[in-house]
Amino acid sequence: MHMEEQTECVSLPPQGPPGPPKCELVCIFGTGDLGRSLGQRLLQAGYTVVFGSRRPHSCGPLPQGAQVKVHAAAAQSAKLVFIAVHREHYDFLESLRAQLKGKVLVDISNNQKKDQYPEANAEYLQRLVPGASVVKGFNTLSSWSLLNGPLEGKQVLVCGDSAEAKQGVVELATRLGLSSLDRGCLSSARELEDIPLQLFPQWRLPLRLAVGLTASFFFYLLIRDVIYTYATQGKDVSFRIVVSLANKVFPIVSLIMLSLCYLPGVLAGILQLYRGTKYRKFPDWLDRWMLCRKQLGLLALGFACLHVIYTLIIPIRYSVRHTLISRVVNEMKNNNKSTPFDFDNTEAWATDSFYMLGVLGFSLYILLGLTSLPSVGATLSWREFTFVQSKLGHLTLLLCTAHAYLYGWDKFLRSSTYKWWTPPGYMLCLVLPTVVLVLKLLLISPCVERSLSRIRQGWERGQSEGAAWGPAGGPGKSIHL
Amino acid sequence: MHMEEQTECVSLPPQGPPGPPKCELVCIFGTGDLGRSLGQRLLQAGYTVVFGSRRPHSCGPLPQGAQVKVHAAAAQSAKLVFIAVHREHYDFLESLRAQLKGKVLVDISNNQKKDQYPEANAEYLQRLVPGASVVKGFNTLSSWSLLNGPLEGKQVLVCGDSAEAKQGVVELATRLGLSSLDRGCLSSARELEDIPLQLFPQWRLPLRLAVGLTASFFFYLLIRDVIYTYATQGKDVSFRIVVSLANKVFPIVSLIMLSLCYLPGVLAGILQLYRGTKYRKFPDWLDRWMLCRKQLGLLALGFACLHVIYTLIIPIRYSVRHTLISRVVNEMKNNNKSTPFDFDNTEAWATDSFYMLGVLGFSLYILLGLTSLPSVGATLSWREFTFVQSKLGHLTLLLCTAHAYLYGWDKFLRSSTYKWWTPPGYMLCLVLPTVVLVLKLLLISPCVERSLSRIRQGWERGQSEGAAWGPAGGPGKSIHL
Amino acid sequence: MHMEEQTECVSLPPQGPPGPPKCELVCIFGTGDLGRSLGQRLLQAGYTVVFGSRRPHSCGPLPQGAQVKVHAAAAQSAKLVFIAVHREHYDFLESLRAQLKGKVLVDISNNQKKDQYPEANAEYLQRLVPGASVVKGFNTLSSWSLLNGPLEGKQVLVCGDSAEAKQGVVELATRLGLSSLDRGCLSSARELEDIPLQLFPQWRLPLRLAVGLTASFFFYLLIRDVIYTYATQGKDVSFRIVVSLANKVFPIVSLIMLSLCYLPGVLAGILQLYRGTKYRKFPDWLDRWMLCRKQLGLLALGFACLHVIYTLIIPIRYSVRHTLISRVVNEMKNNNKSTPFDFDNTEAWATDSFYMLGVLGFSLYILLGLTSLPSVGATLSWREFTFVQSKLGHLTLLLCTAHAYLYGWDKFLRSSTYKWWTPPGYMLCLVLPTVVLVLKLLLISPCVERSLSRIRQGWERGQSEGAAWGPAGGPGKSIHL
Repeated sequence: MHMEEQTECVSLPPQGPPGPPKCELVCIFGTGDLGRSLGQRLLQAGYTVVFGSRRPHSCGPLPQGAQVKVHAAAAQSAKLVFIAVHREHYDFLESLRAQLKGKVLVDISNNQKKDQYPEANAEYLQRLVPGASVVKGFNTLSSWSLLNGPLEGKQVLVCGDSAEAKQGVVELATRLGLSSLDRGCLSSARELEDIPLQLFPQWRLPLRLAVGLTASFFFYLLIRDVIYTYATQGKDVSFRIVVSLANKVFPIVSLIMLSLCYLPGVLAGILQLYRGTKYRKFPDWLDRWMLCRKQLGLLALGFACLHVIYTLIIPIRYSVRHTLISRVVNEMKNNNKSTPFDFDNTEAWATDSFYMLGVLGFSLYILLGLTSLPSVGATLSWREFTFVQSKLGHLTLLLCTAHAYLYGWDKFLRSSTYKWWTPPGYMLCLVLPTVVLVLKLLLISPCVERSLSRIRQGWERGQSEGAAWGPAGGPGKSIHL
Repeated sequence: MHMEEQTECVSLPPQGPPGPPKCELVCIFGTGDLGRSLGQRLLQAGYTVVFGSRRPHSCGPLPQGAQVKVHAAAAQSAKLVFIAVHREHYDFLESLRAQLKGKVLVDISNNQKKDQYPEANAEYLQRLVPGASVVKGFNTLSSWSLLNGPLEGKQVLVCGDSAEAKQGVVELATRLGLSSLDRGCLSSARELEDIPLQLFPQWRLPLRLAVGLTASFFFYLLIRDVIYTYATQGKDVSFRIVVSLANKVFPIVSLIMLSLCYLPGVLAGILQLYRGTKYRKFPDWLDRWMLCRKQLGLLALGFACLHVIYTLIIPIRYSVRHTLISRVVNEMKNNNKSTPFDFDNTEAWATDSFYMLGVLGFSLYILLGLTSLPSVGATLSWREFTFVQSKLGHLTLLLCTAHAYLYGWDKFLRSSTYKWWTPPGYMLCLVLPTVVLVLKLLLISPCVERSLSRIRQGWERGQSEGAAWGPAGGPGKSIHL
Repeated sequence: MHMEEQTECVSLPPQGPPGPPKCELVCIFGTGDLGRSLGQRLLQAGYTVVFGSRRPHSCGPLPQGAQVKVHAAAAQSAKLVFIAVHREHYDFLESLRAQLKGKVLVDISNNQKKDQYPEANAEYLQRLVPGASVVKGFNTLSSWSLLNGPLEGKQVLVCGDSAEAKQGVVELATRLGLSSLDRGCLSSARELEDIPLQLFPQWRLPLRLAVGLTASFFFYLLIRDVIYTYATQGKDVSFRIVVSLANKVFPIVSLIMLSLCYLPGVLAGILQLYRGTKYRKFPDWLDRWMLCRKQLGLLALGFACLHVIYTLIIPIRYSVRHTLISRVVNEMKNNNKSTPFDFDNTEAWATDSFYMLGVLGFSLYILLGLTSLPSVGATLSWREFTFVQSKLGHLTLLLCTAHAYLYGWDKFLRSSTYKWWTPPGYMLCLVLPTVVLVLKLLLISPCVERSLSRIRQGWERGQSEGAAWGPAGGPGKSIHL
């Protein structure tokens, strides 16, 4: 890193008139991690960097090539000052009002938690130094990624009341290889300051649902499988809780979550058909539900993966091996036929088909998961995305539902299935996917599909269809995209 | 979302002369999904947005802070008008020729299918309003991603005959945090309009190949495994179709597809060696083949994954358990030695090596797949990418081929292997990878490798090597990169 | 590709004054792969492209719409000349000094290996043509990605002594849809030229460590498992090397690497506590260790995946089936009880819990791996990233360590475990994760955690806490972010 030389070379006048980005001077208040990382990046991009510090001579290691001065002196020569200081210490800036007048102050601070202060840091800063133009920005980048990571594809969000000041910050970000997004005026600063403090807001509802479903089915199956056996046969099969029971709960929750992922789309279609227009807003709960479909689907995939691994470890489990060996030995002891039991062709077909449907369904599941990776999804055209998420998605649901039906194919009518008059778990979990698939089938039946696609292209029921569309307007087919 | 306040604050004059991007007014014709999403984004980025509608008072929910007017009034104050209207309704624009004169019209429309109309929507629009500068763009972004997704890394493709108009659109895109790519003049509009309608064009050939190979080998093995058994022994083993047969077809197709992925590179090398230059174009079929190598490899990986899962479920299958139990029982009944059968050390070595090669090959396969994820591939340097795709790729092919050879290690010379005089499937599938590996071995043998790398650096056979290279040109070593 | 028409249409004057990016002319010296790919992209973006060649009439296929001239003529009309020629042939440029005076020369060349020449190509070029402004750039893009791939999110690194020249190159890159990063002056050219030649520099240390650990444990277990059996019982169990032994080595190495991934963070915390400040630099070895944590973790994940696949193929292995069958048969021969061996409830609980911990640990492992994908990581906020990598990471370590403890739960006190007085491999591998977990537990205990987080927020021990913070500076709480 030839910081020293860089600073030198930039100060040499290049041929031609001095272009705008040449040896621009940027000031950074604060020599903490974020300040130093930012300084390093700015030096790399050819800026001259001056740190403002209250102890210029004992402020720890700074990037090579940067200068350090006391705050007032540091700010003097720069047009743009980064405030890389904790909010608690902003008050000293009040005394620098004169020096900061007319400058652009970039507030890059973050708080420890949400709603720590009544007003956003950037708004507080603007109040302290009214003569400067405060721009909030860069706070969504971590000092770690500034220092180490490539910044390709990263985005700087900025907001501020002065368009000119924002423009300056955007230009600087562009030179650092960052794209920028203008988020409006300084009153949006609070939103920007909350972004780094988010903890999976879109995952909360789906996660709660998954935990709730898992717990309910776990207790339901605990009663049916373990407690029932103990109560009626006095046998302790509590060891089943760890793997067998879990491996019944996971596929059930996975299938329910997958149906919940496709149910809102079907409901929206029905609603549009019923209303005869697409121009009325969906109810709030449906909107929120639609927005967490991706998370629902990914959680369903997670449970499906657990189900697959739990299934694959079956043959190495102690209890399974014990059962297998006991079975052979019992077979040998009790009857002395030459083959211990007959090969049942139907059973072979049914179980193998059961596995096949599971494997194919899981493969499509994985494919859906892969296309939801941001970088893979970004390479898909709109039609490709629709094809994968809608066509392949419903096919996955169909395969997984068929897999579950085949699991119970000969047990539905057996009375021994209904212990204590309760249906087994897989029967309960089949209700929702069956409903979704039947509704979807109705929606894609030719006549319904035609009406729906007309509505989705902007047609509205109840408007006079015959009326000609004229440039002056008037009722007619909707022209809105 | 403080839309209302944003519009207000932007209209306040900031200190200094008014910068160019301040409170710019943008007009959007059409209040459909795409129009509203775009309006929302523009408002967020500090633009003033006016919607043009034929029914300004009943056009559904619009983003907060936007105005709605009739088309003529809406267009008046804006320099830039987004046309978010279906092409079928463009004709009303003809009557607005006067109002739209000199404006930049951004055509963001898409069609329902390819070649729906003889000319591109944007060209039609230009014909309707000859006085305006039409720019095609933004149509590759979905309203969904505009509304919800982060736009980082997304790209706007624009084309148009006026460079100035395009520049304006590019600047707007940049403020929305989008990068832009100029795709030339308006005659490229058709290409841009086709992009969202693509359905995996690069996957078609590999997919057809995969389906063809799967079907052929499926029928071949159906005859050999199921029909042969029925014809000669009268035994119905049709249940094998579902899992056993599939698990023979998948690895065969996977290995063939993987060799097809590496064959064109080897062929290209041979062709360059034979021609003695790299400056002659490859035949078209080779070029097209090279371009779908990634897809071939990923499909091969998909089949390999299916093979792995199908293999791992073997021990939990009914028929396998039945065979195992029958075997023990038969062993017990028929001979009464203290150990039912002797442990064969060679067999243990062979089968375990067979599994090991499979596992290692599959792991490398997965690694190759991971590096072909766009975001992972983007972090690789050119040399790293070459190392992974060429070195690791051929190593994967070697391991998988060895895995297949070991599968049949003691069956090649047994006559019972050749049912009805046909070779088993895995022998057929070994031909192609063996050829690729032998050719590759030849190409990386020292003397051949030296010639080839000289050619790839620009050397051409048949040119006088002694001639000095002078600035005035003349024959000599090629200097072209 | 309507190259022909594009060039035509761009030459038509659009309405309004000619904007800056209109029909700009760019010259490319060299007609090799990179030159042609770049020319194609430039033409697509609406530039006029003139190739400079020493044989303008026989230089192979060029993109449609481009012109070819001899070097001197080609350079004349362009302000910007791309030098797409191998460095060995730069000398001819010396004779073009007059024609290239005042132009911007973009050196896009790469070398075959590092340190091939004493000075960077770009610096050599600048020396040859001192009157021009040389900018190094574009060399990190491959001709492959220029020709085929989408350039979204790709970044051009530029360096050069003239800020104005760099600005021109950056603008061109932006029009091609690329973001740019200014890397300072021309003396950084060497760094830029080395980037495409990197071969996983950050992976070297972790890879060496993994290979070393694998080899050591392999030989250790070879002695304990295979040679010991042969020496004491005369039994040849060498076939175990292939799968059984590997499946012991892989989890051991994986767990050690995972602990090594979390150890430096714990050490850094202790060091900060001990020093009472965060403003002193960590020792170099710790810094380097921290920087390869991601690679350590991903390698650990790779070994864990191998362990999982090797475990899942256990039941289909010949030796395992043989053991199972022999066991049944022996059971039958030797004792004639009705059940061959009793079902051990504790054993069932222990083994099932062992598997459950393994599966859950592995699932979290995979989750950590997924979030380290660049495109997934980029969507995480700072707090989310910390949560996943720290909280979930340590939980993974805890689950995997518990999995390993449970593996040996009843073997720790058996003397038969200590063959030749050596502890089994899993005991050795438990030391490090146990240490890491205990230290982490100490660090997150309430009182220690409070001190540490105060230090991490900038507090320093030994400074007078009571001193008020004044704008003029003076001792006090650190204000640095």
